[in-house]
Amino acid sequence: MQEALRLAAVGRFTTSPNPNVGCVLVAAKSATEHSNESVNANEHILGRGFHAQAGTPHAEVHALAQAGSRAAGSTAYVTLEPCSHYGRTPPCADALIKAGVARVVVAMEDPYHQVAGSGIQRLREAGIAVDVGLMQAEARELNLGFIKRAEQGLPYVRVKLAASVDGRTALSNGHSQWITGVAARQDVQLGRALSSAVLTGAGTVLADDPLLNVRLTRDEYPTELSDDIDIRQPVRIVVDNSGAIGDSFKLWSAASPVWLARPHGLPKTPLPVHGEVLSVEGDTKSNASRIDLTALMKTLAQRDINDVWVEAGARLSGALLQQGLVDELIVYQAPKLMGPDAKGLIDLPEFTRMTDLPEWQFHSVQQVGEDIKLVLRPRK
Amino acid sequence: MQEALRLAAVGRFTTSPNPNVGCVLVAAKSATEHSNESVNANEHILGRGFHAQAGTPHAEVHALAQAGSRAAGSTAYVTLEPCSHYGRTPPCADALIKAGVARVVVAMEDPYHQVAGSGIQRLREAGIAVDVGLMQAEARELNLGFIKRAEQGLPYVRVKLAASVDGRTALSNGHSQWITGVAARQDVQLGRALSSAVLTGAGTVLADDPLLNVRLTRDEYPTELSDDIDIRQPVRIVVDNSGAIGDSFKLWSAASPVWLARPHGLPKTPLPVHGEVLSVEGDTKSNASRIDLTALMKTLAQRDINDVWVEAGARLSGALLQQGLVDELIVYQAPKLMGPDAKGLIDLPEFTRMTDLPEWQFHSVQQVGEDIKLVLRPRK
Repeated sequence: MQEALRLAAVGRFTTSPNPNVGCVLVAAKSATEHSNESVNANEHILGRGFHAQAGTPHAEVHALAQAGSRAAGSTAYVTLEPCSHYGRTPPCADALIKAGVARVVVAMEDPYHQVAGSGIQRLREAGIAVDVGLMQAEARELNLGFIKRAEQGLPYVRVKLAASVDGRTALSNGHSQWITGVAARQDVQLGRALSSAVLTGAGTVLADDPLLNVRLTRDEYPTELSDDIDIRQPVRIVVDNSGAIGDSFKLWSAASPVWLARPHGLPKTPLPVHGEVLSVEGDTKSNASRIDLTALMKTLAQRDINDVWVEAGARLSGALLQQGLVDELIVYQAPKLMGPDAKGLIDLPEFTRMTDLPEWQFHSVQQVGEDIKLVLRPRK
Repeated sequence: MQEALRLAAVGRFTTSPNPNVGCVLVAAKSATEHSNESVNANEHILGRGFHAQAGTPHAEVHALAQAGSRAAGSTAYVTLEPCSHYGRTPPCADALIKAGVARVVVAMEDPYHQVAGSGIQRLREAGIAVDVGLMQAEARELNLGFIKRAEQGLPYVRVKLAASVDGRTALSNGHSQWITGVAARQDVQLGRALSSAVLTGAGTVLADDPLLNVRLTRDEYPTELSDDIDIRQPVRIVVDNSGAIGDSFKLWSAASPVWLARPHGLPKTPLPVHGEVLSVEGDTKSNASRIDLTALMKTLAQRDINDVWVEAGARLSGALLQQGLVDELIVYQAPKLMGPDAKGLIDLPEFTRMTDLPEWQFHSVQQVGEDIKLVLRPRK
């Protein structure tokens, strides 16, 4: 299963909106081999596969093709329940049955409503032994966005922040280039590349005029991308409450789609062909002239957006946080001090009690070049 | 030498103002043993020693006593140049010569003016082969305060800060208990225990009325403390520019000395017997009614203070930083967000250019319970 998880991760820059899945087919051991500890596990692997891109064959199909007739009687390790429905490709459960696989070990059930246990059921009905749950936690980590969308109808949201050790993002005059070093900025490119969408606010576009696309060459990805697979560019989404984003910004110079999330009722303005307005209901609870961010996220999930990477100012980041829409805070921290006049990391209301503070936990801490990268998740 | 360094560190909570020193005596290998790689290095160790407390025997003396007559012809590994002067104990260089040690490997020269190479010279004059510099960087790390005081006439200053991920130390109403968890607070106790002095400002005393002593039991030290060694309590120092610290504070309830650093000319007030006023010149460059912090640090070095642990507010911490007196920033960061109304980590002037920011580097990053501990040093 470890090898299947490794394989699944190879596809992580390209599969969305599909999940990352890996599959390994292993020969049944003979009785003598069972007692022989020195046998190399690799000798038993008959086939390996991973899903690379929506519309192309699933992990199981690749592994079965590699194993050929030796698949009969083998055990399949799959990181996600084999599918049971006809999507763009035929059901993998049927392929495993047809190949005569004897046993299937599944890391986790597929939460997608068209599967949700029916793949496992189909295998069992065909007389195949199925075990579920091996390395489930690791398997979930591979598909946080896909799973959250299937389970909650919302994308998995990562808010990226770059700050000094004293939690400041820019000097009082707005200067902020560069807080973090080259390695951290390269890591941000990978964060974008892993995401279905990059989200920002109109304020950031007006102030910095960013491109917000992925500017990595094939060589710079930490995994091998085969030449016949298209590199994914995330959709770029701007929360544009006042319709300020016209056609004069650098955003438009990159070819990937730009969605402008605007409240209902703003006058229509002409946009370049790769632009689109998402008309979202107003936030009636606080300020109806601003879009309801939860409604926006639901719309994004309906549009097959699994993972949203937010690079926004303190206000939009804070608003997402306060509305409970943030699954990860990713803070690149530079070994600098900017002082109390510099701009703060994130807008939140004034708290009067320590027990009222939002509670997070460090998921990981890592050095990235001269900076550190903190990943926080809400405390369970 | 690795073993000698390990031994030296055992004394780190007790030796000050003396340095931490470790010594290992190793038997010369026979020609046959040289070619036998399977010989256990431990079998050659004749004696081990470390310095535990000023006034008690030095590391070399302990190791020589353990080795007895076998010391003749041996090699001594010492983390710091053996002393050559009569202090509270006789010179170790002489003891090594007398025992007939054949070779001495020294990690670093002793920067203390009464030694400064003369111990090495004495050994060489006695016909002993001396090598200097093995694992020098590691040896320096053991005695950062002792070395800085000897080389610069200033103590090594660590500024401890506790903050949220967004760099805030307290809510706008002053509430701050507790930002960090139990493990981080225990680690702070160790930081104090490693230091000759704990420094704070009158503002912190007035606001929090802290004890600022070490409240660890012998069991809670990460190293074994022998029963005949006194546990050190750091001197507690308060920067008391306006003479606000009378005898009514909790500080006085602990027995270790309290020094009040006040500008010249403040009227004398009665203090408990363990209190003392350090009369320090005013800071004529910025505000003569405040003490010159550099002058304070020089005074502390003259009083054998090697390591100063600062637990102060944003103003005093910022002032020390701006005057280039800080060698380490130790930031305990909690997985919390406190928002822009909360109080900032450190006071610094307003910067207008990113290139004007003080440049630091991460020396270490470590998880401590639910929090993280960042250690920063000025960029070299």
